[in-house]
Amino acid sequence: MSAHIAADDRVSAILAAFAADSRWEELPETVRHAARRSLLNGLATAFAGSGDSAIGIAARTMLPFTGKPEASLIGRAEKADAMTAAFLNAAAMNVHDFDDTHIRTVIHPAAPVAPALLALAERQHVSGATLLHGLALGIEAACRIGNAVSPGHYARGWHITATCGVFGAAIAVGKVLGLNQQQMLHALGVASAQASGLVETLGFMAKSIGVGSASRGGLLAALLAQNGLDGPARPLEGPRGFLTVTGDKPDLAEVSGGLGTRWEVLRNIHKPYPCGVVLFPVIDACLALKKEHGIRAEEIDSVTLYGHPLLRQRTDRPDVATGREAQVSAQHAVAICFLAGKAGLEQFSDAAVADPAVLALRARVRMEDEAGRDFTGVRATVALKSGRSEEIVIQDAKGTDNGPLSDAEIEAKFRALVAYGAPQCRDAEKLIETVWSLESSDDAGAIMAFARP
Amino acid sequence: MSAHIAADDRVSAILAAFAADSRWEELPETVRHAARRSLLNGLATAFAGSGDSAIGIAARTMLPFTGKPEASLIGRAEKADAMTAAFLNAAAMNVHDFDDTHIRTVIHPAAPVAPALLALAERQHVSGATLLHGLALGIEAACRIGNAVSPGHYARGWHITATCGVFGAAIAVGKVLGLNQQQMLHALGVASAQASGLVETLGFMAKSIGVGSASRGGLLAALLAQNGLDGPARPLEGPRGFLTVTGDKPDLAEVSGGLGTRWEVLRNIHKPYPCGVVLFPVIDACLALKKEHGIRAEEIDSVTLYGHPLLRQRTDRPDVATGREAQVSAQHAVAICFLAGKAGLEQFSDAAVADPAVLALRARVRMEDEAGRDFTGVRATVALKSGRSEEIVIQDAKGTDNGPLSDAEIEAKFRALVAYGAPQCRDAEKLIETVWSLESSDDAGAIMAFARP
Repeated sequence: MSAHIAADDRVSAILAAFAADSRWEELPETVRHAARRSLLNGLATAFAGSGDSAIGIAARTMLPFTGKPEASLIGRAEKADAMTAAFLNAAAMNVHDFDDTHIRTVIHPAAPVAPALLALAERQHVSGATLLHGLALGIEAACRIGNAVSPGHYARGWHITATCGVFGAAIAVGKVLGLNQQQMLHALGVASAQASGLVETLGFMAKSIGVGSASRGGLLAALLAQNGLDGPARPLEGPRGFLTVTGDKPDLAEVSGGLGTRWEVLRNIHKPYPCGVVLFPVIDACLALKKEHGIRAEEIDSVTLYGHPLLRQRTDRPDVATGREAQVSAQHAVAICFLAGKAGLEQFSDAAVADPAVLALRARVRMEDEAGRDFTGVRATVALKSGRSEEIVIQDAKGTDNGPLSDAEIEAKFRALVAYGAPQCRDAEKLIETVWSLESSDDAGAIMAFARP
Repeated sequence: MSAHIAADDRVSAILAAFAADSRWEELPETVRHAARRSLLNGLATAFAGSGDSAIGIAARTMLPFTGKPEASLIGRAEKADAMTAAFLNAAAMNVHDFDDTHIRTVIHPAAPVAPALLALAERQHVSGATLLHGLALGIEAACRIGNAVSPGHYARGWHITATCGVFGAAIAVGKVLGLNQQQMLHALGVASAQASGLVETLGFMAKSIGVGSASRGGLLAALLAQNGLDGPARPLEGPRGFLTVTGDKPDLAEVSGGLGTRWEVLRNIHKPYPCGVVLFPVIDACLALKKEHGIRAEEIDSVTLYGHPLLRQRTDRPDVATGREAQVSAQHAVAICFLAGKAGLEQFSDAAVADPAVLALRARVRMEDEAGRDFTGVRATVALKSGRSEEIVIQDAKGTDNGPLSDAEIEAKFRALVAYGAPQCRDAEKLIETVWSLESSDDAGAIMAFARP
């Protein structure tokens, strides 16, 4: 399958053929490295999520039904069959929404895709390059399918990480299994029968069940297709197919156009802070103001944010009650930056939200729209009780498309999240070097030994 | 929860409360018996489907991941963990679309609901009355949710048996687990995160994966809710909830109105023939003509069907290539009736479709619309080469709302389907009496021993 086929309306077959015929050697190094970064970032967020109550309940409920303990649960002592491990690791990777994010669609693609691959790699031999190849293609497929139905799909109420993620997982596992074009198309068809997830569940543990199901469902789809289970010829673009049913006017060219040349996997960002992307410049600004000027919270009279209207519309929330709500509160973000000097998961916990000092500082934050500001930047002023005031302008905030986290910053995030969620995993540090050099590994599944306590 | 609460907009909570508070003693005997009939009919179609290639591939793919062999696979020698058994039995029960059918929504409700209950009953103690209670409530919930989004939901492309079935399975299992109102609501929320299934997959093995997932997903949802996993307050009617997202203008009163007095479970039919409902009067007519007048196929010059326009629009298909297509071909139905004198699964096989005698007779069938005909009836005339002609008028065909199969006819269907799909199950016959008397059984799971070879 050439990368230059014009977009036509048989996009399922085109995508399947592209994935089946793709060769690792032909992927640009930028794409390969993007896969490594998503994997390391995803492992980090899975460690952080491994102790979350939703993951604990899911593990307690599912482990009595598990088969052979062949696959690791990241950050946990138990092992499970590969289907169950894919489910639980995907749920853990995404539970804080701190995993990689494809900004255009708001898909978190690594969560449904990577755990299915890792679980399979503990069950059967998979080389490091093959795993990374599957991961790159799976992320690419999920994001392209998401592009085709965005923004209407998410706006209508589909939790796009789960609904599109199952296709990504199917393509990824299908690639590792070596499916041919026809089998790959059937894998997409079986995935289409399992695509689910509703925005109504966000903010509740039920969200994680949708994401877990996407990873497990994609793994199952590829295995079924390998064994001969068939599906429709046009699972995506058919008259009752996924894009048609869940999208208003799907743009088919987003799925099939520029395959092999335009890479959505390169448009995937890694969050420095566990909150909405529009708050990244706010946090950059406040952390810098505090650090550069030695400002203490009790000195502050007021903080004013001058930003893109989107910032105010989405995050002007002085009164929040839970850590989850705080993820989209500019007032909360400002407060924890000046109080704690950092913006990690602890700073977005329910406890942090209820802290009287945080409450007091939240009340001192004002927001104004300012012409010419992009939503990746902000101007922030802090007025001190002494009469002094300071100002900073942020452009291309850390973590946005133009301010991507460096590899070293992802490593630091990894260490912080292991310390947060799974300090008992003393070998986790070894995963950093192992992931960077995964391409040269003959046994990708072996790395999961470092993910357990 | 009174049955007389007016329909308001908190229908998830109302449905959850109704299910949690329902008492078996308060169900009308008609409803209880409808549950028994759906169970027996569903076991019958599962035996028939157990050897289907889709089920074989699914079993071969999933069994390597199964946990403790605690639950039976109907018609098969293997056992599996309860989650896997629910999946595979649901897929088998529905693979031929010969299971119970709620005409208004085209939901086949027993397939997602009953297998989840049966699998759980082999895992933990469940009395016969409790299982039937769960089945009645699960069917009721699935069909009511389906009513609320019909006909737009199916027309858009949702495979309603799977999408609504997961809620039915969650309610059913939730009832057997004794969930309280809040837990039952959470079970609906977790089910909402897994609701999937596309019409595009119909006619392919992938369809069965959607149906299997619905049963497994409902079982999982109820178990998770029992263990404390939470979901949104309004999983069905919320702004990004299931009804809102998958329905155009959902009619919420269909979910909550008349609970305990209006029973959708009573509007569930059992098919006498493995084909579209509109063909039932055609088959009744042709079987009667053949039997009453001793007509042999080779004597026939032509057969003319005078029916409701829907009959012609949906089934005027003289040229069909597969058994599945034949299920909606009036010409095929007429031919096999006069040739075989019966209309079972064998008569709708690929082999039957290719039979030269069937082909020849299909070409002799004509269809005309006739004013005043309902789609549950037909007038049929047969003109013989001898010049003689005969006519018959059918009203309220067997299997329709007004011509329901008798218990004895369901028993006969059961025996025929066991003989078709699982003749090696020599104890299957015992299930007939066991199901009819299930209310008095202390251990509903024990009946599954009769479902195995």
